[in-house]
Amino acid sequence: MAIAQKIKNSMEQSSWIRKMFEQGALLKAQYGADQVCDFSLGNPNLEPPAVVHQALLKILQESPAALHAYMPNAGHPETRTAVADFLSREHGLPFTLKDIIMTCGAAGAINAVLKALINPGDEVIILAPYFVEYLFYVDNFQGQPKIVSTRPDFLPDLKAIQEAITPRTKAILINSPNNPTGRVYDHTIIHGLGDLLSDYSRKGQVIYLVADEPYRKIVYDGVQVPSAFQAYNESIVVTSYSKDLSLPGERIGFLAVNPQAPDRDELINALTLTNRILGFVNAPALMQRVLVGLQGQTVDITLYQRKRDLFCDGLSQAGYQFDRPEGAFYLFPRSPIPDEVAFVQALQEERILTVPGRGFGAPGYFRIAYCVADEVIERSLPGFARVMKKFTP
Amino acid sequence: MAIAQKIKNSMEQSSWIRKMFEQGALLKAQYGADQVCDFSLGNPNLEPPAVVHQALLKILQESPAALHAYMPNAGHPETRTAVADFLSREHGLPFTLKDIIMTCGAAGAINAVLKALINPGDEVIILAPYFVEYLFYVDNFQGQPKIVSTRPDFLPDLKAIQEAITPRTKAILINSPNNPTGRVYDHTIIHGLGDLLSDYSRKGQVIYLVADEPYRKIVYDGVQVPSAFQAYNESIVVTSYSKDLSLPGERIGFLAVNPQAPDRDELINALTLTNRILGFVNAPALMQRVLVGLQGQTVDITLYQRKRDLFCDGLSQAGYQFDRPEGAFYLFPRSPIPDEVAFVQALQEERILTVPGRGFGAPGYFRIAYCVADEVIERSLPGFARVMKKFTP
Repeated sequence: MAIAQKIKNSMEQSSWIRKMFEQGALLKAQYGADQVCDFSLGNPNLEPPAVVHQALLKILQESPAALHAYMPNAGHPETRTAVADFLSREHGLPFTLKDIIMTCGAAGAINAVLKALINPGDEVIILAPYFVEYLFYVDNFQGQPKIVSTRPDFLPDLKAIQEAITPRTKAILINSPNNPTGRVYDHTIIHGLGDLLSDYSRKGQVIYLVADEPYRKIVYDGVQVPSAFQAYNESIVVTSYSKDLSLPGERIGFLAVNPQAPDRDELINALTLTNRILGFVNAPALMQRVLVGLQGQTVDITLYQRKRDLFCDGLSQAGYQFDRPEGAFYLFPRSPIPDEVAFVQALQEERILTVPGRGFGAPGYFRIAYCVADEVIERSLPGFARVMKKFTP
Repeated sequence: MAIAQKIKNSMEQSSWIRKMFEQGALLKAQYGADQVCDFSLGNPNLEPPAVVHQALLKILQESPAALHAYMPNAGHPETRTAVADFLSREHGLPFTLKDIIMTCGAAGAINAVLKALINPGDEVIILAPYFVEYLFYVDNFQGQPKIVSTRPDFLPDLKAIQEAITPRTKAILINSPNNPTGRVYDHTIIHGLGDLLSDYSRKGQVIYLVADEPYRKIVYDGVQVPSAFQAYNESIVVTSYSKDLSLPGERIGFLAVNPQAPDRDELINALTLTNRILGFVNAPALMQRVLVGLQGQTVDITLYQRKRDLFCDGLSQAGYQFDRPEGAFYLFPRSPIPDEVAFVQALQEERILTVPGRGFGAPGYFRIAYCVADEVIERSLPGFARVMKKFTP
């Protein structure tokens, strides 16, 4: 047998999201794509803002020398300076280009971070429900994921986190605004977490706070996402332009190390190395240039807010239970029956595609990705209502 | 200490190529970039052919929906079909899009392949001199690199390879046209290697032949690069458009599995998974689209051939010993003194940057990357001659 044993096992478990994606493709082939309401994938339906193509065209017109060449592995200095300046304003901290490494998306950034931090057997705390790829990422470096349940409102349970910390704990990976719940962790929680981790730092155990923030700019009703950098010195933010600029296929993002981190220089050197030797080498060159002038730009967030409101109102009327999300573009309702896989399959019979909560370590719930046309949301609501009725007579 | 122990060690060893690159940056700051002859990095000086920007502009003009969106992890079907069609003509084998995965460069492809194949402790044969990153890539998956020396002419020594094979051997990684030697492995060698590995396949031990071929199209004097696919069924080609289209910063390449490989389907599924879970997710979207119409296009190879001739003639006259390379854009001359690091440092005093052979597992030699302006080559020759004279009075 040619394939590595671990990969063979992983293939068998596969990802629920991809499984739904594939079943959806079959349904679409059978009934036509416009007859299926596909909420299975966080693939933004909004096109990038016009400034993205304007910037691309301007660069191609100017066609500077070495536009597509290798650059320092950490990325183009102009891009990293632009990111650092933006972060300095956003977080009120003195970032410089040295604190920034451009990466192949947030996924590339997380892998570079985990490879730099984890010795085999080290533990990484992950909060459930979680983005399922996190488990693969920790396993890539023989780390042990330590899954900690969130509170019933899906916000972090600091006491449970504290109880999960052991001498092997090397990092905690958080994601706010959250996939799959849409929840935003508030100031009290982030600073509580920072204080908790600072206690360990003072005792000599550094536990890195890795904040995965691709949805930071996708928030509603004026909600603010607290700064992990302000809450805790040993923090790293990993993020991408996949969601806020609708560029997920381009694999462009960055990681930023807290300028106050005591190990800052060594850490950045390590991250530059791991980003290189994992085979990323550097983030895509042309997109790096595009981003120089686009810091702080986003798609029109009110369009996502309208989708959220449309969906939340419709599902509430149909009797679904969920916390109204403050950010990202996911809903994570409770399944009206304990076996949410059966419920998701009943939705499929209505040609509605969602993902069972067990794919995120949270059975009894299901995920709806609402980064789709408003029309699809509207068309799905009667089906959602019929399936709810079927299970709650 | 926050950094993983293994990464700390790797940082200390660092890469000779990068070390020279950094020393070069210091020299350039001191004397001005135009006063330093930098042959340390394989960063092509030729701009991409005009068709690349023409294709980019056409796509931006048409601006199709979901241009920057996620696609199947293996890549856009149109791109994979274009690659498969090209490979079918090139190798006389029936490739389809299913055999192709678009990757973040050849480096991304090699990592996806090694993760799919290697169980911890499995061995991967690597031929010295080697591209130093190979050692990191094998180590990323707890594989054991098994270094096998090439013959004095830097072509593979089949007997030495056979002697290095153990029951743990899972793959052999070859690179032709070769970095750092510029040699091209001929038909006899590739088919001899294929026959050798086929013997093991028949006995039940599958050893994958992984052919890293980013320089396949950069060959001189009408030399042909033999097809690894024709020589051996269990073969995978990994490559990129970094060198032949001068797009190294864009991280775009692909891997292709031999359509005759018995494990083909399982292997492709495994590679799609590993490309995803290593954090690459997919190859950059826009560049994938660009490549649809550019199969077989290259920079003007005669320009590299002229550089090779200019350099080889000049170095020969100065008394340097080397095999005239048939491909790629590297020269790997013998150092006139056993300690090639001392020799490389003497070249630095002439403001000439090269890389010591021990960075490639071959002490006593040094690498010259001649993907630079002709003028730099011409300007360097008197310095090369002076240093040679100094050591051979």
